[in-house]
Amino acid sequence: MLLSSNSAADHTPEAIRAGARSGAISGQTSGMAKGFAQGNLVILPKEWAKDFLNFCLANPKPCPLLAVGRPGDPSLPGAGEDIDIRSDVPSYRIFRNGNLVGEVENIANIWQDDFVSFLIGCSFSFEWALLTAGLNVRHIELGTNVPMYKTNIECISAGRFSGQYVASMRPMKPADAIRAIEITSRMPQVHGAPVHFGDPSAIGIVDVTRPDYGDPVPIREGEVPVFWACGVTPQVALANAKPPIAITHSPGCMLLTDIPDDDLMTGRFRFTVPDF
Amino acid sequence: MLLSSNSAADHTPEAIRAGARSGAISGQTSGMAKGFAQGNLVILPKEWAKDFLNFCLANPKPCPLLAVGRPGDPSLPGAGEDIDIRSDVPSYRIFRNGNLVGEVENIANIWQDDFVSFLIGCSFSFEWALLTAGLNVRHIELGTNVPMYKTNIECISAGRFSGQYVASMRPMKPADAIRAIEITSRMPQVHGAPVHFGDPSAIGIVDVTRPDYGDPVPIREGEVPVFWACGVTPQVALANAKPPIAITHSPGCMLLTDIPDDDLMTGRFRFTVPDF
Repeated sequence: MLLSSNSAADHTPEAIRAGARSGAISGQTSGMAKGFAQGNLVILPKEWAKDFLNFCLANPKPCPLLAVGRPGDPSLPGAGEDIDIRSDVPSYRIFRNGNLVGEVENIANIWQDDFVSFLIGCSFSFEWALLTAGLNVRHIELGTNVPMYKTNIECISAGRFSGQYVASMRPMKPADAIRAIEITSRMPQVHGAPVHFGDPSAIGIVDVTRPDYGDPVPIREGEVPVFWACGVTPQVALANAKPPIAITHSPGCMLLTDIPDDDLMTGRFRFTVPDF
Repeated sequence: MLLSSNSAADHTPEAIRAGARSGAISGQTSGMAKGFAQGNLVILPKEWAKDFLNFCLANPKPCPLLAVGRPGDPSLPGAGEDIDIRSDVPSYRIFRNGNLVGEVENIANIWQDDFVSFLIGCSFSFEWALLTAGLNVRHIELGTNVPMYKTNIECISAGRFSGQYVASMRPMKPADAIRAIEITSRMPQVHGAPVHFGDPSAIGIVDVTRPDYGDPVPIREGEVPVFWACGVTPQVALANAKPPIAITHSPGCMLLTDIPDDDLMTGRFRFTVPDF
């Protein structure tokens, strides 16, 4: 079964995870299981996990935590009852010493009993909220990937992890940007309010028409670029820290969780960090 | 007793009202009774009150209601137990057929048994919240009045009341503006989030260095002007509607209420509208 994006929107997160587990779903998850949060995945050995946890906690805008696993435990009950993190993401990237060395659909064969899983909130949730509020999200309108940029906004360093924010950009008229700030400020677990709007050079972006990741989008008359902290930031921090092994989701290929987007907006969401 | 601004900050709202009542306080109330909301006053005959109520309810950003009095009743229990609205504001303006005809410290002698009092939230409350959050509020830094501008943003008309927004402006760096939007969006009873930022001409402001009311402030390198709906808007609507009589506070000479600013931020504040 290969789910079309339309029908996938109405599937449960559990069904999407089952599709990823069976190999039926191996691509992007944008728009799937509408109304449920999707998560960026980072898996690290326990020896690196404490630093990374502290890095996320110190930098909640780019690295808002949704769930943290117990060392060696491939379940992630805070994000969904039946999750097996070794198979439930459609596609994984494997990094050794900071370098991408492979892209696979299952990591059961390289799972280590000291692996700790981190699930980080994703802008899909707040884009759903923006669309629900009647706002235009340019890259969704155009059917492209969101443009993302390296910035000069420094993360707070934690142990071996450091780096600068990656920011995603959505162009909006000021009144819409204000509404978008209001909405996203209520969703701190999925990057929260923007970090900047207007002049891109103020945050170190030289050419807004040439994003470092994703696709460019036009900024129309009367619009300003609005920048949100982006979940690619931890991948930059991983590349800087060069742990012997790290595993992430492939771009756009997220873990579907059972966390309702609405819980992220209304403050009902809670998460706990296991001891490690 | 003429209270200095410093000591007045530590007085209770009740004490400031007593000072206004006795004539000891007849000027601006900015900074007095810190932590309590101040209100813009509009008094109209009952025959005009229903239209004005509907105008306020339809335009909550410029005209956020804090309290509405019963016809002929000079008390305003929703804003403070002992309020006598005929004397507790330091200075009043009297308008006949839309024209300013006088400025007085007491309106007991012209009070009518069909007068309805409207109390409208004031930006002093959110400026307190911005300062508390460590943000710079330029006109407070400079000790001047906030610059205010006529805009082309149309109010929703209600009966005989119509007009365009007046907006106050505070220059900020984008990251501070985002924080200010987050903060003020939580305070809908005191104008809420801004209505615009950036290009003044987008809301019909020709020259940002020449405000229609208040004093100009410099916009520094890297800052953008941020515009909030302003409590002067209802005065413009009054001038348009030309009721036979209307009474307002004099600019900056507000009613001190017993409503904690904090209640306006945390959603604890409630108000009811009497029948009339």
